Amino acid sequence: MARELFADDTDAVLSRYAELLQREIIRTWEADGDSLAAMALYALGAPGKMLRPILLLESALAVGGQLEHVLPAAVGTECGHAASLTHDDIIDGDEIRRGQPAVHRRFGLDDAIVAGDALIFQLFLSLARCRHAGVPGERVAAALEVVATAGVTLCRGQILESEITVRQHCSVGEYREMIAMKTAALFQGTCMSGAILAGAPEPLCEALGRYGRELGIAFQIADDLLPYLSGDETAGKPSLSDVRNRRLTLPVILAQEAADTTDLAALGMAFGGAMPASEALEAVRGVLERTSAMTHCVHMAMAHADEAQRALDHLPPSASRERLAVFARYAVIRQSLRRRPGR
Amino acid sequence: MARELFADDTDAVLSRYAELLQREIIRTWEADGDSLAAMALYALGAPGKMLRPILLLESALAVGGQLEHVLPAAVGTECGHAASLTHDDIIDGDEIRRGQPAVHRRFGLDDAIVAGDALIFQLFLSLARCRHAGVPGERVAAALEVVATAGVTLCRGQILESEITVRQHCSVGEYREMIAMKTAALFQGTCMSGAILAGAPEPLCEALGRYGRELGIAFQIADDLLPYLSGDETAGKPSLSDVRNRRLTLPVILAQEAADTTDLAALGMAFGGAMPASEALEAVRGVLERTSAMTHCVHMAMAHADEAQRALDHLPPSASRERLAVFARYAVIRQSLRRRPGR
Repeated sequence: MARELFADDTDAVLSRYAELLQREIIRTWEADGDSLAAMALYALGAPGKMLRPILLLESALAVGGQLEHVLPAAVGTECGHAASLTHDDIIDGDEIRRGQPAVHRRFGLDDAIVAGDALIFQLFLSLARCRHAGVPGERVAAALEVVATAGVTLCRGQILESEITVRQHCSVGEYREMIAMKTAALFQGTCMSGAILAGAPEPLCEALGRYGRELGIAFQIADDLLPYLSGDETAGKPSLSDVRNRRLTLPVILAQEAADTTDLAALGMAFGGAMPASEALEAVRGVLERTSAMTHCVHMAMAHADEAQRALDHLPPSASRERLAVFARYAVIRQSLRRRPGR
Repeated sequence: MARELFADDTDAVLSRYAELLQREIIRTWEADGDSLAAMALYALGAPGKMLRPILLLESALAVGGQLEHVLPAAVGTECGHAASLTHDDIIDGDEIRRGQPAVHRRFGLDDAIVAGDALIFQLFLSLARCRHAGVPGERVAAALEVVATAGVTLCRGQILESEITVRQHCSVGEYREMIAMKTAALFQGTCMSGAILAGAPEPLCEALGRYGRELGIAFQIADDLLPYLSGDETAGKPSLSDVRNRRLTLPVILAQEAADTTDLAALGMAFGGAMPASEALEAVRGVLERTSAMTHCVHMAMAHADEAQRALDHLPPSASRERLAVFARYAVIRQSLRRRPGR
């Protein structure tokens, strides 16, 4: 009962943050009111859960920072995330995002490339604007290094992912390394930069960085489970995307390890690219069930979520720390039960 | 005679800068030694003239800055430029860049999008690293705002250009506004950030910003002349690109204004998209000659180069100021006589 009340309260706080961020995002772009602004706002999408910017806000607040000081950086984080989705959808050939046509379907490939670039630049422009919101330049410069490093790492992870896709082979360790770069680096950079902007001492910045990294890994594993859990109704992007793009994600890698000869052949066929994607998806789901790969995956995601929670032990007690713990506690379950948050 | 000696000396200094920058660029990426680094180095291309990073170095030196303090930011500028070329070549469908296959031809569309993104992130990571080279964080944060603003403006200019291409109509004023965003904003941001990182007082930063902006406009006008001046042999990218992409550049806009009914129809045909690009190019060249549009263009470029030189009057005398003046003086001529520098 107490936990439910607490979770309700958390939900109310998160809704307030999301509204505040949505207003700030619109204010950031609408001032210009031109075609690029319209594309950027489209890419930023219908009001979502704003997971990443809320992580930045809570990280700053958890170390004694002020919300209004870091709000621009939080907006920037959401811009950076939207940039990555915009370019990802081109690369994956995904046509639907959050229930509406992907940016490249709505505006064409050329403008989608430019809109993604603009959103990356806005990530950094928003970070710079923290200076005008009261953050000393020294902190902005330190956060810049963390955020830019996360960006390069993200790209490195994407290239590694495309190499894995070509060779159609990947160990669990390499998968973890890949998602640590592709997804967790940005979570890590987001939490860490929130703490840096708030002026936290280094051990606290590091602790929040670890929290973000582990949460990001848990989040990506849970995200990779989604296509195999159920139909399109639970996922913001179509369930067929991963199979169609022959993407080796954790459930498939674990299934490969545990499968007998017949199931191994079935997986090979499904990821061979010759089968219609919907048939391939059904075949993979069958193998995953027989090999208990899904359960194994959920346990791995949970272990990373636990690590994330443990990283918070280094922080002083606060409502923000508690909410960060809630994120970690429910990351995997929420991902599995609801539409993909933040995607 | 004196001028020639001076120019020779300038060339020697510029060669030394270019070598230094080339070494730094390789050092920046080779430390990682993975596929992304290989793509980034490929995108950064054969040692070029390094126009933009040299502008940053000279801007810093012209206000009393130290080269080693701002060297990382200069490397970043070249990364940002390479990012823009990488994504531009996808958008324009250009297959050759600096005499070798464009990044998307060499590595495929998907990886070229990611490589471009990584180069943008590296632009900001390199800027952040100036802190470790001795620049106070306050200056890095101030430069960040200028560079990120230039990036968003660049994207805005690209979207405006694509709108102009669709409607196939553009006034001289609108063209100037478009290239001021698409090209000159980055020149402006580059020169200004060099001055900011060097700790120059605001009026000097503004003067160098104006210099960069006017030089950038002159540079882009001269660049837009190239396809109509001669064959492929003078241009780093194929002469047919602008006609094939139905791009309304200054020579064409001026020709439209001065053309008689026959020539206007010829231009309409050439940019209608139905004619083979090589025939269209010849037709346009004929009209440009008859309307004196080329001469008119050169005069406009020269006027902006003169403005750039005048902006330097606000700076104290120095060898760097003199070299910046040389850039402005020869920007248009060099562009016309040689291979496109810096592209």
